[in-house]
Amino acid sequence: MFTCTFTFLDLYQITMAYAYWKSEKMNDHAVFDLFFRKNPFQGEFTIFAGLEECIKFLEKFHYSSSDIKYLKSTMPSSVDQRFFEYLKDLTPKDVTIYAMEEGSVVFPRIPLLRVEGPLIMVQLLETTLLTLVNYASLMATNAARFRMFAGKNITLLEFGLRRAQGPDGGLSASKYSYIGGFDGTSNVLAGKLYNIPVTGTHAHSYITSFTSIDDLQEKTLTHKETGQVCNLLELACKHRNSVAADVGTLVSEASNGELAALISYAIAFPQRFVALVDTYDVKSIESSAKRQACIASLNVKNKCLTNGSNTHAQNGVRNSPIISESTSYDKNGFLNQGELGELYVRSGLLNFCAVALALNDLGYKAIGIRIDSGDLAYLSNTARDIFERIAIKYNIPWFAKLTICATNDINEETILSLNEQNHKIDCFGIGTHLVTCQRQPALGCVYKMVEINGQPRIKLSQEVDKVTIPGKKDAFRLYGADGYALIDLLQRSTEEIPQVKHKVLCRHPFQESKRAYVIPSRVESLHKVYWKNGKLCQPLPTLQEIRNRVQESLKTLRNDHKRNLNPTPYKVAVSDDLYNFIHDLWLQNAPIGELS
Amino acid sequence: MFTCTFTFLDLYQITMAYAYWKSEKMNDHAVFDLFFRKNPFQGEFTIFAGLEECIKFLEKFHYSSSDIKYLKSTMPSSVDQRFFEYLKDLTPKDVTIYAMEEGSVVFPRIPLLRVEGPLIMVQLLETTLLTLVNYASLMATNAARFRMFAGKNITLLEFGLRRAQGPDGGLSASKYSYIGGFDGTSNVLAGKLYNIPVTGTHAHSYITSFTSIDDLQEKTLTHKETGQVCNLLELACKHRNSVAADVGTLVSEASNGELAALISYAIAFPQRFVALVDTYDVKSIESSAKRQACIASLNVKNKCLTNGSNTHAQNGVRNSPIISESTSYDKNGFLNQGELGELYVRSGLLNFCAVALALNDLGYKAIGIRIDSGDLAYLSNTARDIFERIAIKYNIPWFAKLTICATNDINEETILSLNEQNHKIDCFGIGTHLVTCQRQPALGCVYKMVEINGQPRIKLSQEVDKVTIPGKKDAFRLYGADGYALIDLLQRSTEEIPQVKHKVLCRHPFQESKRAYVIPSRVESLHKVYWKNGKLCQPLPTLQEIRNRVQESLKTLRNDHKRNLNPTPYKVAVSDDLYNFIHDLWLQNAPIGELS
Repeated sequence: MFTCTFTFLDLYQITMAYAYWKSEKMNDHAVFDLFFRKNPFQGEFTIFAGLEECIKFLEKFHYSSSDIKYLKSTMPSSVDQRFFEYLKDLTPKDVTIYAMEEGSVVFPRIPLLRVEGPLIMVQLLETTLLTLVNYASLMATNAARFRMFAGKNITLLEFGLRRAQGPDGGLSASKYSYIGGFDGTSNVLAGKLYNIPVTGTHAHSYITSFTSIDDLQEKTLTHKETGQVCNLLELACKHRNSVAADVGTLVSEASNGELAALISYAIAFPQRFVALVDTYDVKSIESSAKRQACIASLNVKNKCLTNGSNTHAQNGVRNSPIISESTSYDKNGFLNQGELGELYVRSGLLNFCAVALALNDLGYKAIGIRIDSGDLAYLSNTARDIFERIAIKYNIPWFAKLTICATNDINEETILSLNEQNHKIDCFGIGTHLVTCQRQPALGCVYKMVEINGQPRIKLSQEVDKVTIPGKKDAFRLYGADGYALIDLLQRSTEEIPQVKHKVLCRHPFQESKRAYVIPSRVESLHKVYWKNGKLCQPLPTLQEIRNRVQESLKTLRNDHKRNLNPTPYKVAVSDDLYNFIHDLWLQNAPIGELS
Repeated sequence: MFTCTFTFLDLYQITMAYAYWKSEKMNDHAVFDLFFRKNPFQGEFTIFAGLEECIKFLEKFHYSSSDIKYLKSTMPSSVDQRFFEYLKDLTPKDVTIYAMEEGSVVFPRIPLLRVEGPLIMVQLLETTLLTLVNYASLMATNAARFRMFAGKNITLLEFGLRRAQGPDGGLSASKYSYIGGFDGTSNVLAGKLYNIPVTGTHAHSYITSFTSIDDLQEKTLTHKETGQVCNLLELACKHRNSVAADVGTLVSEASNGELAALISYAIAFPQRFVALVDTYDVKSIESSAKRQACIASLNVKNKCLTNGSNTHAQNGVRNSPIISESTSYDKNGFLNQGELGELYVRSGLLNFCAVALALNDLGYKAIGIRIDSGDLAYLSNTARDIFERIAIKYNIPWFAKLTICATNDINEETILSLNEQNHKIDCFGIGTHLVTCQRQPALGCVYKMVEINGQPRIKLSQEVDKVTIPGKKDAFRLYGADGYALIDLLQRSTEEIPQVKHKVLCRHPFQESKRAYVIPSRVESLHKVYWKNGKLCQPLPTLQEIRNRVQESLKTLRNDHKRNLNPTPYKVAVSDDLYNFIHDLWLQNAPIGELS
């Protein structure tokens, strides 16, 4: 979607490029590491994503004459014009990129990319590579966490386009949510571009655009098998009368506009009938006396319910149960969420069941419902209960398994809390919290020089976490006999690869006393060459393969590293050689002050 | 940048469109309001932005045959194929859009856009309009807040591309930061596309790519006036010796690699010389004995400093002041930020001053420095102090006013805290917190149907804040005699416009007891028609005009609405007619339950 262009960078890359060129350092051989320092979302793992986009950017890298013209206009007139000629012919043909496999579980400090080549070119790639990896990895990690906490049997849908940070932010969100484990998106363009399943039904406005049965122009639908034309409205009205008691709603309480909307939708999509059921869901209480009456009535009902969990099923039409523990009014005199309001989701539930049963008469199976407000655990249980009762009553077992989709401002905590409440939801549609990564909207990858002309570079910092690990390095993941990953190990590129069944000394990069011998049952080399001599070196995985890779890679990680509360940090170590190399260099680079 | 395409929407818009078409409701006349419910960032105002992008989207709206082909593949095969023919010819020619002026201060509930037209078309616009307004307005508001708290004399630069949510997120961030009051961006493409000033110098990697003076291939620069070729290195070394005492650093403590880097940069950009001065800024302490010695020494120096704020100026080379109140070591035995580390910013400061003075000899004025770590208030004061001293010593007054730019993870709180500490910073470069809107990464605009075929629609909700205000409405801003905005008023479109000097009854939309008469000195109609009969109705303002509009519009808002802590909510009211209209409709729509 996004047209790659050479000017997609920070100006300081261009000013540095000119200064390198001017001082004839442009072809110095540089090595940069792209890495992050801290896992996002208070977690202890990250999913690496964005590699394919990085490679595509390299493939298209070229300064157009329009780019050059613009750059000329922004640079001082004193700039040597031959520099622009030089830029015109610049390509990343001498750049080599080592990278982790896209979709892998990754950890702080281990380079996601190692970029080698002429200083000028490698420096020019900085911002673009960071942008393409940062949000992609953050998004994939966020999605993977939702998947983990929702469980593998729940359908997860990304509904975030309208809240995304810019149109392309929406596209990236759809793509990387899918990679992280979501099943589909509402974003049609993402579906078209990336072949991701797209999904969606209707909004509240669809329901409210119908006022009454009279708004229904078309009332008939042909039978799926026989082809016979039947009146869906008549069938639905008949069923509405007969299931009202099962749903716990008076037919007179149900909205006819809503029924008309659902029928028209069912006629349009008889095989994909999903209904939004919470449009008519509120109740205002007019007088203080009525409020008191209401509270009293609620209390009585609460009692009924606690005395027998299924009492409400037999209570008949007017005694709809109110399960909420506390009944309260807000300052405006309205009943609060989850209380009386719940009564009126039943307009939607009744109308849905009526239409679904009518469709069933014509050979079609409805898909399910969507709930966009209220107490989702309670409402999903109510709906499931009703579906199960109808399944038995009409002897249509599939009715018990109708899909219940929830979509109201869902985040990680909502899902964990719903899990504790034994919700009966099959599908979550998640928007804002997913696509904006509300808990932590940036990953914070950095791109640091670690070697130039064969000389290691260390960036010292007052904060030890910000000290870079110098030199060209290789990374390995050591696995235990149980198949779980034990530790990630960084070595100097000149060292021998760790051997299976041989003990390996693993050291904390900065704390001398923290060290351990590890005897790996399996050793995985984490970096592969993806780009060399101006082209891709090995086939890139498909989106589906990356998506599978995420789940496979997560399986190798012990559960205690993945849990939501106080996860155990996964260890990232350096070899003894690298440890000494870092600290010798650190000493050499320590400024000469009064204390050394 | 982003290619507008018809498929840039949520699938449910398409499924609804088909259901509308199928039930022959597609040409029902609908009115939708696009609005938000709560100001972002715990503030009490929002800046409206994104209108131009909405209009551009409408201008390009068209379903390509590739779009149609894809939609066919996602829709069930039962869908009537004539629908796709219908889509091919669909255009927004019958849509009318009323909107607030882009760049205006806006408030909850007042529609930013009112979209009228055929139901099918108006519904299809939902997601795109939301996406284009949501992030744009959030970003412009965030930028405007930074501008407000930084003060009008500070240069604000957007440096967020690498942390943006997708490439286009980065572009939108640059554009709407500029609108909100930023002065420039590091994003070259944004500069190119939107004609925003671009800016940038170099990274730490530029500095560390030079190891010693020997790395300097080119040492000469021609004099700006005389054209004489001079040795910049020699001049800089001479100045370094003579200003070391003023800076408070031994020449032997300063990095020669850094000097080489700054000289090469100065040769490349003699008229735009800005130096990153904190590359060599850390100190490890090797032994416990040395730690103790260091602490003792620090304590002595703290005392020196507190006894006379300028003592350090006369202390000479080795007695660099340490201003930090508490001296502590972290668990790794390193001194914490802001303490000893500060000593070593002076390598950068000394090298910068040396090169800047050498440039001055050749007729060039340096721009200033960038600090990317440490205690920014203290470091900026130290640097300003040194610049002022050198300005006097060499009789070059402009040296005292060199720009000090700070860039380390700046957010709103950092700026407010720096203000309290009397920082001497002239320029902030802001990235992550600006572009991701970390404090609140989504605005939450919604798009609600308020009328269909002349019939008002109200969306009721258990949460009164989510109840929509029904019907076609006009919005006015009433101003007091002092020129400040008093209240925003929503009326039914059929009502007469409020008159200057006539009292207007303004009511809280949901709280009966809250009402007040307002006598406006000025009445501003907030909505204009921007799109009608398939085209733009009035010229769109330039980016610069929108940017000015933001500041002008903010000026009409009392300071207590704008402050950071507990700002006073600005009032949004409805007319008495509209109040009664809402509540009558609410009663009519209340479901028939046991309490009514």
